[in-house]
Amino acid sequence: MQKNKREIKKKVDLLIYGEWLISPGKKQGQDIIPNGAIAIEGDTIVDLGSGEDLKKRFDPKETIDAGQGIILPGLINTHTHAAMTVFRGLADDFSLMEWLYERIFPAEKDNVDENLVYWGTLLACAEMIRSGTTTFADGYFFADEAGRAAKQAGMRMVLAKGIVEFPTPDLKDPRKNIESAKRLILNWQDDPLITPAVFCHSAYICQPRTLIKASELAEKYNLTFIIHVSETEEEVCKVKEQFGKPPVLHLESLGILNENFLAVHCVSLTEEEMEKLKDYKVKVSHNPESNMKLGCGVAPIPDLLKKGVLVGLGTDGCASNNNLDMFQAMDCAAKLHKVSQMDPAVMKAKTMVEMATKAGSQILGLDNQIGTLEKGKKADLIVVDINQPHLVPLYNPYSHLVYAAEGADVKMTIINGKVVMKDRKLLTFDEEEVLEEVRKIGKRIKSSLNL
Amino acid sequence: MQKNKREIKKKVDLLIYGEWLISPGKKQGQDIIPNGAIAIEGDTIVDLGSGEDLKKRFDPKETIDAGQGIILPGLINTHTHAAMTVFRGLADDFSLMEWLYERIFPAEKDNVDENLVYWGTLLACAEMIRSGTTTFADGYFFADEAGRAAKQAGMRMVLAKGIVEFPTPDLKDPRKNIESAKRLILNWQDDPLITPAVFCHSAYICQPRTLIKASELAEKYNLTFIIHVSETEEEVCKVKEQFGKPPVLHLESLGILNENFLAVHCVSLTEEEMEKLKDYKVKVSHNPESNMKLGCGVAPIPDLLKKGVLVGLGTDGCASNNNLDMFQAMDCAAKLHKVSQMDPAVMKAKTMVEMATKAGSQILGLDNQIGTLEKGKKADLIVVDINQPHLVPLYNPYSHLVYAAEGADVKMTIINGKVVMKDRKLLTFDEEEVLEEVRKIGKRIKSSLNL
Repeated sequence: MQKNKREIKKKVDLLIYGEWLISPGKKQGQDIIPNGAIAIEGDTIVDLGSGEDLKKRFDPKETIDAGQGIILPGLINTHTHAAMTVFRGLADDFSLMEWLYERIFPAEKDNVDENLVYWGTLLACAEMIRSGTTTFADGYFFADEAGRAAKQAGMRMVLAKGIVEFPTPDLKDPRKNIESAKRLILNWQDDPLITPAVFCHSAYICQPRTLIKASELAEKYNLTFIIHVSETEEEVCKVKEQFGKPPVLHLESLGILNENFLAVHCVSLTEEEMEKLKDYKVKVSHNPESNMKLGCGVAPIPDLLKKGVLVGLGTDGCASNNNLDMFQAMDCAAKLHKVSQMDPAVMKAKTMVEMATKAGSQILGLDNQIGTLEKGKKADLIVVDINQPHLVPLYNPYSHLVYAAEGADVKMTIINGKVVMKDRKLLTFDEEEVLEEVRKIGKRIKSSLNL
Repeated sequence: MQKNKREIKKKVDLLIYGEWLISPGKKQGQDIIPNGAIAIEGDTIVDLGSGEDLKKRFDPKETIDAGQGIILPGLINTHTHAAMTVFRGLADDFSLMEWLYERIFPAEKDNVDENLVYWGTLLACAEMIRSGTTTFADGYFFADEAGRAAKQAGMRMVLAKGIVEFPTPDLKDPRKNIESAKRLILNWQDDPLITPAVFCHSAYICQPRTLIKASELAEKYNLTFIIHVSETEEEVCKVKEQFGKPPVLHLESLGILNENFLAVHCVSLTEEEMEKLKDYKVKVSHNPESNMKLGCGVAPIPDLLKKGVLVGLGTDGCASNNNLDMFQAMDCAAKLHKVSQMDPAVMKAKTMVEMATKAGSQILGLDNQIGTLEKGKKADLIVVDINQPHLVPLYNPYSHLVYAAEGADVKMTIINGKVVMKDRKLLTFDEEEVLEEVRKIGKRIKSSLNL
């Protein structure tokens, strides 16, 4: 009898047990499983539920007992410029224009090349994997190199190159910007981990003709169209001056707002613009730390959520944050809106975890693959070690994830069924080599700016 | 000759080398020493400077090469209720009154005893040591037990018991509150690590007579007098209703404002009140994360600093934060004021590090002992490990400490010349035992509230 029972167990590659298993976005009561487990075959989640139940039903090649850990979906960073890790801390505490025109732009002009983007992105991947991010949406120069780094790291990525109207380190002739964006799409469209996207810098830098062409390109390949929108009041003024309308209304007039449109920042919006975002099912990426640090303002996220607009969370690049830790982003966002609205009940912990997981997958168009822990979805998940002083006692796992945990509490990261970090050790690439290469790049940047 | 040279080396207990040595608060240019070292004898800093120089001049019993690390003074948490770690995450995302009257107060009433305070404080010490805090100012019940825990952990502490006007778990008869506060002072006044203080809850809970007596007690022993001031608009209204004046003016009318007065929070202040704080040389403890999470508002810290008011940083207790990580407090404070003033140049990284170290020692009256790295001061210092993806490259150590580092980056903590944590291992007590005991307490709290 014993033997028969064993024989009917389903073979899987990996079975992971943890004190808590969380799938944010599921119905209340079904989202938290105490003493849970998850079964993985290849790149896919086969089943999840109580550990006791799964133990009876599965025969895993490998078992990982995460012990006092919270298993949850990998975090989704919906907006960054990964390679900008190389500029981390280069220009803090300056006014916005000084920051951009006297530090960041000159540093980029003199230093950005394939080598910088590859190593800078790989450094970002190390940091993200270590702090529980499994998917990131990236927009920068030499995007093929960024994609190559993410592949090397084993990360899931939405990959885009920045479309602007002036010569860039990777494209001397801006008239070819759409063509170049198209080439990137063709290079990556069949990759299992990397999904191309189209990324225009903003309505104040990109001309209407460019925005329309870029939008058409995104539509043709059914990809996300990403653009910075209303990050600062200054940007709003510029767009109004040029086009007679604030950014969202200007973009509407170009006919490019739709459900694949991802508006990043959305700090300065009128009520009318918020209604437009809702009506066109536009998605929003909220980057609270960058907005705070650059003194841009507070995005009206609670209002957008009330209207039903889908909002994901992002860190922005390291020139303005200065790390890529999504735990800190969750914490900061929750606290920022509570104090901004003088209401401790807005932006609850569970809302924040959903924003960093399920909503992130939705706004990037990847919710059929990731964002929740469900049968048939890709196995992108992390384990947070709760056997630590700052995570004891535990009354509510969501609360700990948002208000008490930090990136370094992630003890395991799995992407597409593959363990990419275990017990704080990266398994996909040589971290020390990356640190060394980026230190060299940092030295070059420093001397190029005569610092 | 070689031998002679060796013989004149001064013997010390400990010599620590690090890639960067920072003593915030020193003159520009003298505050950052690359490839620095610090020599410690007993509990005292004997010298500091370039590693090469100190190597020639000192003969240490023990040498620690902190390698790619930043050596800096231990962080000073100027306000917490340490034992409240046991309530961490018990009541998040509620309105302020629901939080206090339906969760925290009932949980305290039914559960706070010597055992809870001892283990809760020891857990807090574990968390603080791990995140680089070497001194904390504490106010709670059963303060002797809190002191006992801090002694056990080897932490420096400013110790006070909460004076209120109603029966508390540790004092049934509130008429004896001043007497009880005095007993605590007598118990601890000669301790090398623990400095007693007097702590009244607030002007809306403590009656004028109590405030005056408590202030007299603090004056008699030359101790800091701590009180929550203007944490919320509601508090301001209550005080105005009762006494016809906002809190700071009410406290002035009682004649108790002076340079040993430590006003905690100071969120809602009038211009007149800010001037009073300056005139009386009152000290301020800023607790940005607690103020944000409870939706209290933004303390006018940049304005206070402009006036020359001394401001230190605090985490507040874990019922409202929910961790004791001073790195996060620095980061949050800087970003909060930047966005609040729409100015990325306010509250610079260096200002924040100074606030968390030197200013903290000043507002607690401990600046003759700690707060900077200087010859003759007590050896309270930490080492931040910068050989990590999120701390590479490095252009400015202050920037990394505030905007990129997290508590877990602290690899060594030294208090009063004693290494209390090395390579993330606590050396003064059994951490697993503490976690176990606090988990038990957490279970009791949970069942007492029928959660």
